[in-house]
Amino acid sequence: MSIPEITQTLLQAKKDKGLSFADLEATLGRDEVCIAALFYRQASASEEEAKLLVEALGLDSSYIKHLTEYPVKGLGPVVPTDPLIYRFYEIMQVYGFPIKEVIQEKFGDGIMSAIDFTLDVEKEADPKGDRVKITMSGKFLPYKKW
Amino acid sequence: MSIPEITQTLLQAKKDKGLSFADLEATLGRDEVCIAALFYRQASASEEEAKLLVEALGLDSSYIKHLTEYPVKGLGPVVPTDPLIYRFYEIMQVYGFPIKEVIQEKFGDGIMSAIDFTLDVEKEADPKGDRVKITMSGKFLPYKKW
Amino acid sequence: MSIPEITQTLLQAKKDKGLSFADLEATLGRDEVCIAALFYRQASASEEEAKLLVEALGLDSSYIKHLTEYPVKGLGPVVPTDPLIYRFYEIMQVYGFPIKEVIQEKFGDGIMSAIDFTLDVEKEADPKGDRVKITMSGKFLPYKKW
Amino acid sequence: MSIPEITQTLLQAKKDKGLSFADLEATLGRDEVCIAALFYRQASASEEEAKLLVEALGLDSSYIKHLTEYPVKGLGPVVPTDPLIYRFYEIMQVYGFPIKEVIQEKFGDGIMSAIDFTLDVEKEADPKGDRVKITMSGKFLPYKKW
Amino acid sequence: MSIPEITQTLLQAKKDKGLSFADLEATLGRDEVCIAALFYRQASASEEEAKLLVEALGLDSSYIKHLTEYPVKGLGPVVPTDPLIYRFYEIMQVYGFPIKEVIQEKFGDGIMSAIDFTLDVEKEADPKGDRVKITMSGKFLPYKKW
Amino acid sequence: MSIPEITQTLLQAKKDKGLSFADLEATLGRDEVCIAALFYRQASASEEEAKLLVEALGLDSSYIKHLTEYPVKGLGPVVPTDPLIYRFYEIMQVYGFPIKEVIQEKFGDGIMSAIDFTLDVEKEADPKGDRVKITMSGKFLPYKKW
Amino acid sequence: MSIPEITQTLLQAKKDKGLSFADLEATLGRDEVCIAALFYRQASASEEEAKLLVEALGLDSSYIKHLTEYPVKGLGPVVPTDPLIYRFYEIMQVYGFPIKEVIQEKFGDGIMSAIDFTLDVEKEADPKGDRVKITMSGKFLPYKKW
Amino acid sequence: MSIPEITQTLLQAKKDKGLSFADLEATLGRDEVCIAALFYRQASASEEEAKLLVEALGLDSSYIKHLTEYPVKGLGPVVPTDPLIYRFYEIMQVYGFPIKEVIQEKFGDGIMSAIDFTLDVEKEADPKGDRVKITMSGKFLPYKKW
Amino acid sequence: MSIPEITQTLLQAKKDKGLSFADLEATLGRDEVCIAALFYRQASASEEEAKLLVEALGLDSSYIKHLTEYPVKGLGPVVPTDPLIYRFYEIMQVYGFPIKEVIQEKFGDGIMSAIDFTLDVEKEADPKGDRVKITMSGKFLPYKKW
Amino acid sequence: MSIPEITQTLLQAKKDKGLSFADLEATLGRDEVCIAALFYRQASASEEEAKLLVEALGLDSSYIKHLTEYPVKGLGPVVPTDPLIYRFYEIMQVYGFPIKEVIQEKFGDGIMSAIDFTLDVEKEADPKGDRVKITMSGKFLPYKKW
Repeated sequence: MSIPEITQTLLQAKKDKGLSFADLEATLGRDEVCIAALFYRQASASEEEAKLLVEALGLDSSYIKHLTEYPVKGLGPVVPTDPLIYRFYEIMQVYGFPIKEVIQEKFGDGIMSAIDFTLDVEKEADPKGDRVKITMSGKFLPYKKW
Repeated sequence: MSIPEITQTLLQAKKDKGLSFADLEATLGRDEVCIAALFYRQASASEEEAKLLVEALGLDSSYIKHLTEYPVKGLGPVVPTDPLIYRFYEIMQVYGFPIKEVIQEKFGDGIMSAIDFTLDVEKEADPKGDRVKITMSGKFLPYKKW
Repeated sequence: MSIPEITQTLLQAKKDKGLSFADLEATLGRDEVCIAALFYRQASASEEEAKLLVEALGLDSSYIKHLTEYPVKGLGPVVPTDPLIYRFYEIMQVYGFPIKEVIQEKFGDGIMSAIDFTLDVEKEADPKGDRVKITMSGKFLPYKKW
Repeated sequence: MSIPEITQTLLQAKKDKGLSFADLEATLGRDEVCIAALFYRQASASEEEAKLLVEALGLDSSYIKHLTEYPVKGLGPVVPTDPLIYRFYEIMQVYGFPIKEVIQEKFGDGIMSAIDFTLDVEKEADPKGDRVKITMSGKFLPYKKW
Repeated sequence: MSIPEITQTLLQAKKDKGLSFADLEATLGRDEVCIAALFYRQASASEEEAKLLVEALGLDSSYIKHLTEYPVKGLGPVVPTDPLIYRFYEIMQVYGFPIKEVIQEKFGDGIMSAIDFTLDVEKEADPKGDRVKITMSGKFLPYKKW
Repeated sequence: MSIPEITQTLLQAKKDKGLSFADLEATLGRDEVCIAALFYRQASASEEEAKLLVEALGLDSSYIKHLTEYPVKGLGPVVPTDPLIYRFYEIMQVYGFPIKEVIQEKFGDGIMSAIDFTLDVEKEADPKGDRVKITMSGKFLPYKKW
Repeated sequence: MSIPEITQTLLQAKKDKGLSFADLEATLGRDEVCIAALFYRQASASEEEAKLLVEALGLDSSYIKHLTEYPVKGLGPVVPTDPLIYRFYEIMQVYGFPIKEVIQEKFGDGIMSAIDFTLDVEKEADPKGDRVKITMSGKFLPYKKW
Repeated sequence: MSIPEITQTLLQAKKDKGLSFADLEATLGRDEVCIAALFYRQASASEEEAKLLVEALGLDSSYIKHLTEYPVKGLGPVVPTDPLIYRFYEIMQVYGFPIKEVIQEKFGDGIMSAIDFTLDVEKEADPKGDRVKITMSGKFLPYKKW
Repeated sequence: MSIPEITQTLLQAKKDKGLSFADLEATLGRDEVCIAALFYRQASASEEEAKLLVEALGLDSSYIKHLTEYPVKGLGPVVPTDPLIYRFYEIMQVYGFPIKEVIQEKFGDGIMSAIDFTLDVEKEADPKGDRVKITMSGKFLPYKKW
Repeated sequence: MSIPEITQTLLQAKKDKGLSFADLEATLGRDEVCIAALFYRQASASEEEAKLLVEALGLDSSYIKHLTEYPVKGLGPVVPTDPLIYRFYEIMQVYGFPIKEVIQEKFGDGIMSAIDFTLDVEKEADPKGDRVKITMSGKFLPYKKW
């Protein structure tokens, strides 16, 4: 799997500037996961956000154009091979149907939106080993009857 | 995709008894998603949990044996077609790499465990439409150097 | 591809009763495509709708239970082989990116919902050969920024 | 998925000229989706249409040759990962069989042509959120008996 | 690959009656390939054709219902393994693009219909070894401009 | 799917010379489909044929070497997405088994060769719309018993 | 991978009779691999051969019908998982192109027939470990020019 | 499928020198298939063999390094599309299980090695058409019990 | 993934008898992994081993026949979904090439046999959490030159 | 499968320096498999390790940056074609379920970690042919109940 060139440029600039995604969160007023999604061209920035980001990274303004484009989304093979990303595939394979049952019991026939959606990643200190906490919040969309 | 027979029996019994997963959560002292995973044979119960579950559902005790077995996990096609489950595949496709960047920045080279792992589903009331809140917590596992 | 047994039973009953989907549309107050989706267990009915349908088809009331369940959705192989259904795959392959461009130009970065969604099938008389008219209407969902 | 170079050039020229697909619709006398299909080399232009388009975009006339060629059609992975395009895959997976039933009931054994075919995208204002309206019209082709 | 049960019954009845597809061609007034397609449920019969076929094969009239249904079409794996059928896949792989060039040169941008379509199989005596002659005739469908 | 560079060069030269495949058929004494197969490097030319072709196209003689090589055959994805080529895949999916039955009835257990094989494409004028006529002729190869 | 029932019956009968494929080779006058292919329904027998085989195995004569049918050929997954069979897949993956070069150098552009074809399996005693010797002989089929 | 650059260079040099694989067999003292495997980087040469080969082909000595490397083996798509190579896939699909039965009967539970393995290609003159004779010899490896 | 019936019977009998694989190791004189492979029909037993196993499990002697058969090996989907088994797929994906480098450096061009092969599973007590120790030992097979 | 450029550079430098992975093991204080994983960008080095490695290989310090990055892991096709690597796939296919049974019996419901994990490759001298010994040690991770 090759990472898009623009992503590599953005990541390198961030590294050279010694910035973390949390730093960029402060600058842009958007969540760090959202900003990482911009880096991987899985999300689009407003003109203003793109300007702030390009400035923060010390890149020339020609990058603004790229960051405001609406990208073709989805990155990687059908079944991911990277262990970190695969675990999310595994969670879907193992807990997909149980989650469906519980959501349907609470909400009815419908889905959790992956568009009207936010996702946070936090570090939870734990004496037995720190934990990754992922919080997803998606609007429930009931099937429209027609 | 055909749902395993035992799952259908368990779901039917739960329906006949008028029980919710939340009710079973109270009975078993385990989370409702975890219990739904038991229903789909994606998780195993202790002898005691199996007894409590079988009693609550009014099933005969021969089901205890099945529920305590360590199942072969993973259910459904390579790319899920059910819209509710697919959205989790989409989240992995779209946000997989961004999440990887953020986790690595916070924790280093490693993964979030999908085994030393919990998952909650909650309903968030929202005037613009209720939201599904999913909280995952997995132990961070750094790559061991050897 | 084997059609689910319940679908075969429902279709047979409809045939035996000499009913069209349009007739059922009048009875249930739901669109004929929506009703056909019920037949194929790609949608769920309310208790009342299920009763009306089961009565209209002269089936015993045990079918009500099945029709009100929230089904696992998606039917058929990854790439459909049936020519009628394949043409919709082809439309997605050929016109998918052009449609994406036009929707994004009109609405911004987001998608057409396939959940808050309706679909109609009409017959358009045409001297050069009748035409199938499909009208889809889905809520535009803009990507939420967070 | 990499977008063909010619597509990128055309899209960039259109952006630089500040033109919408609707503007080009007025210039060429062809529907905006059809023009977007030309951009993605999923359709071919007549000599005259190509000239008008190249002029409108301020490109040199060497592009005329490309736009009049009959392209190899179909773009993207077997199952699309881009959420906007995937929704059309999902509609085919969920509503493919129901649509087949309804078309066959109205027309007999045959298909909706994806060649003698038109597709429109419209914006429907709606207080609960604007809607995307897609209208497809394809000639019904009955199976020839021989 | 398992052949549908109804196909096996029809083939067995034909064998028991000592009939060839050519014999059935005479009885039904439809081409033998078309009749073989009926056997494999890849085509539908009119009420009258179904009656004639069922009589000729000495089957009870309950088979009429099946033969007049509009089937789900397409049979076999994505890439066929049977050598006879695979050769048609190979012809498409090797000669698909050349055929496309020649058809487009003669007709313009469009396709040969596989619906308004006939196919004949003949035996050509040849001293160096008999030859299979396949003749396909499909209506040319030009891409509609809109 | 990217068309090999040599194919693009040959097609462009043919276009620049204003030649049709039928013209080349007259020059080379080989069928136009066969010549198109040479263009796509799905067939090999004799030294003499290559010379004639290169001369006719006004290309330099270095192309002779390429045209006489025995190519690796097969072009395009597992399931073709181009509608014109896909229809041949569909014909194999829908009529593959029926054709197998008819060939076996006429010839016995064996196959139609795709090597000792010819294929013609003709235009049939028809008031209801011109038709594409494809004629394949392949030697029947019976399974050798040993 | 499930082995067809008829294959299991034939293998069991052979075992019960204490016969080897070599014994059956003597009885039928056909090679043992060919006979094993009959067992797996990858080849068809003449009426006489089927009778001899059924007698030798002590099965009732209803099996004659099955053995004389022309089967759908090809058995197993796309990439075989059985180590013995996989090695043949590996040989094709590793030595396929080299073999192609050598055959083409000796014969020209064409193929080795897998239909006008025989295959023998022999045991070669070797002090360093016995060897399996496979001898394939297929007619060379040159590409027909047309 | 693109042939590796080094393979193209080696094949071109061999052609320019007017050498056959049989000529190289005489020079290197290794079988022609083995040498073709070196060309396709599916096998490695000793230092001495590489020198002899590079000299014979008139290439500079920098190629020695490449030829002595242990390559990553396996070339081409999962299911080969080239007809010559596909026939070996077909032989595995059709005769794989029969061969397994015969080998197991002669040797017990185990496999034919594809590593301690040789493969020869010969031309057998035959008045009905020359034949390709392939002889494989692989050490039998019984499953070790532990 | 459905576990073969015979496997389920054997596992159930072992459970009913209260036996561990270690107990069976003592009875049969074969390693516990090897015995588990017998249970899953991935290995074959000698007549004597099968008798001992059937006795130990209290099954009737008809199972001896099944256990001595040489099975079709390989179980499960192309990419395993069960987390325990998937980790071995992941190890191959992540460490496959590094292992290849190290083996080749130590041994030359060749492979580790998976046939002349043993595999042990041990429990290593560790205060930070017990560890699974897997030891594989396979004969090195150098590529035969010919 | 193309090996990443950085891997080729590192391997070439190691060859030019006449170093083995065992030599590098001594220099870096990390296992040779671990170092080979660094070469293939399947693992990351600390700043210090990267410096030592770059010095040992005589490369310029710009490589330090690459070696300390956390790579996207997983290399090669879904089913590996290289025989050495494939054998590990085969071991998973054949012994995956048996290993699962034995691990679960010894440890309970859970997995062997592939992250908190080490892997050694050793050469075992054996008069019947040297053996490859692979030792894996992964922490057992029990399924967390919640």
